[in-house]
Amino acid sequence: MSQAPLLTGVLAPVITPFKPDLSPDVERYVRHCKWLLANGCSGLAIFGTNSEANSLSLDERKMLLEALLEAGVPASKLMPGTGCCSLTDSVALTRFAVERGVAGALMLPPFFYKGVSDEGLYRNFAEIAQRVGDARLKIYLYHIPPMTAVPFSLGLVERLLKDYAGTVVGMKDSGGDWKNMEAMLKAFPGFQFFPGSEEFLLAGMRLGAVGTITATANIGPAAIDELFRNWQDPKADAMQEAITDFRRAITKFPQIPALKHTTALYTGHAQWAVTRPPLVQLGEDQGKALAAELQKRGFDMPGIRG
Amino acid sequence: MSQAPLLTGVLAPVITPFKPDLSPDVERYVRHCKWLLANGCSGLAIFGTNSEANSLSLDERKMLLEALLEAGVPASKLMPGTGCCSLTDSVALTRFAVERGVAGALMLPPFFYKGVSDEGLYRNFAEIAQRVGDARLKIYLYHIPPMTAVPFSLGLVERLLKDYAGTVVGMKDSGGDWKNMEAMLKAFPGFQFFPGSEEFLLAGMRLGAVGTITATANIGPAAIDELFRNWQDPKADAMQEAITDFRRAITKFPQIPALKHTTALYTGHAQWAVTRPPLVQLGEDQGKALAAELQKRGFDMPGIRG
Repeated sequence: MSQAPLLTGVLAPVITPFKPDLSPDVERYVRHCKWLLANGCSGLAIFGTNSEANSLSLDERKMLLEALLEAGVPASKLMPGTGCCSLTDSVALTRFAVERGVAGALMLPPFFYKGVSDEGLYRNFAEIAQRVGDARLKIYLYHIPPMTAVPFSLGLVERLLKDYAGTVVGMKDSGGDWKNMEAMLKAFPGFQFFPGSEEFLLAGMRLGAVGTITATANIGPAAIDELFRNWQDPKADAMQEAITDFRRAITKFPQIPALKHTTALYTGHAQWAVTRPPLVQLGEDQGKALAAELQKRGFDMPGIRG
Repeated sequence: MSQAPLLTGVLAPVITPFKPDLSPDVERYVRHCKWLLANGCSGLAIFGTNSEANSLSLDERKMLLEALLEAGVPASKLMPGTGCCSLTDSVALTRFAVERGVAGALMLPPFFYKGVSDEGLYRNFAEIAQRVGDARLKIYLYHIPPMTAVPFSLGLVERLLKDYAGTVVGMKDSGGDWKNMEAMLKAFPGFQFFPGSEEFLLAGMRLGAVGTITATANIGPAAIDELFRNWQDPKADAMQEAITDFRRAITKFPQIPALKHTTALYTGHAQWAVTRPPLVQLGEDQGKALAAELQKRGFDMPGIRG
């Protein structure tokens, strides 16, 4: 079987709609994924932070992945989150995804224990790579210290890239610290590096980043994709400024509830706004303030209604 | 069915032995649990932090619980950890445990997202209590900010105690901050409060604590149990000093590997020292230094050999 090309461009960490009983709304989920691919996303980082993936069971994640494939979403467009606290869970979910031909696996470190050693983290990924034991496995390390408090050091990345060349291929950096992104980009030429926010897209591309995996791509992928495709254009800095302004308008609010509230507004389906605990959907006043920010910018999600 | 009395005294967050393939060693696990109950533990907080529970899958945890019950360990002695990041996982594991008659469920908050609101945490526990929907359910809140970075505030505890009286009954506080323990003990008389370290056992008992759930109980439960039973004795302060000294000798080393290394030494079964990633077993020098600390104190684990 020929290997799918590595994903580049704008990937959305797809938000997950819930029914009133808080079970995933599969039909709306599939619809949202298709909308994203038709409107600027080159891939879908399903089961990310913004997907509330850690608020879902392993079986719920497997079910959603199967549903996308059955609905005709190509596995080659998918980079599911498969990193869990438990080694056995990580192996099971990664194997499940790889067997279905996904383009990559975006892997959190085991995030319960703090202050763990690079050696312990190395062994986690080494065990996963060996146990999955599939040449199709492409691991993207998911660096998000604001949630995990378990960072990937340069030394750890270097060791993994060396010992698992062709398997460990890239990183999503959601640390929000440009200095760290810059250091990773400079240290590892050819590393498939995605800033975890479009705020760093242009600066990242100039140092060899291959795109961005970003929350706001859930609602406005087109403008981010335009910058990705035209980052060498003279107008790139102005484009960057505009998308950064939009992101900051959204992230004034709790991010995941804000993305779901926006999707609720533009689909006309109020239930989209609902999150699983421990997250809480936006309150009425917050919702109005967010709607005002969106209107002020003439924001739209073309074709999303219904 | 009559309700088992609430657990008090010394509970061990039971360490989990692994075979060379890192699967749980059920036979040694059962043996260790029985040793603990015969040597000073009044209960077993299986699936805690020291159990590497979050490094186990849900199925592995269910299997271990079943194995204990099949081996004749009474469910009334068990307080399994059942709090997961995912609401559906928490409900499934808690229901499984309650249906088997356990004395209580020690519940972590969902610990992936940081900066979550008390409202979101409240909804997590409210959903679990309602979905499990069993009068036998006794929830102990597990406060361990050094790992979760998701604390239980006084206001959240107050609200849960009021709305889920008889279901939310207690707390394990592993924050290491006496001020917080003191505030909880003073605010909620009758709260089944366990300091998460024997270092705070005597001070806790004097303010109404009901025992301690502590890592070092895995290797030396008898001395801690003696203080628990004799906390009003004139010699209680001297007993506290001795057990605190012992604890500090152990926690000079990475705690979980140190407990497993000690168990390996005294059982004569070297494999006991092994952890799952991201934890790493003690190195040779650390192991020797730990053994010296133990010998210096004339430490023993009577009857553990084999």
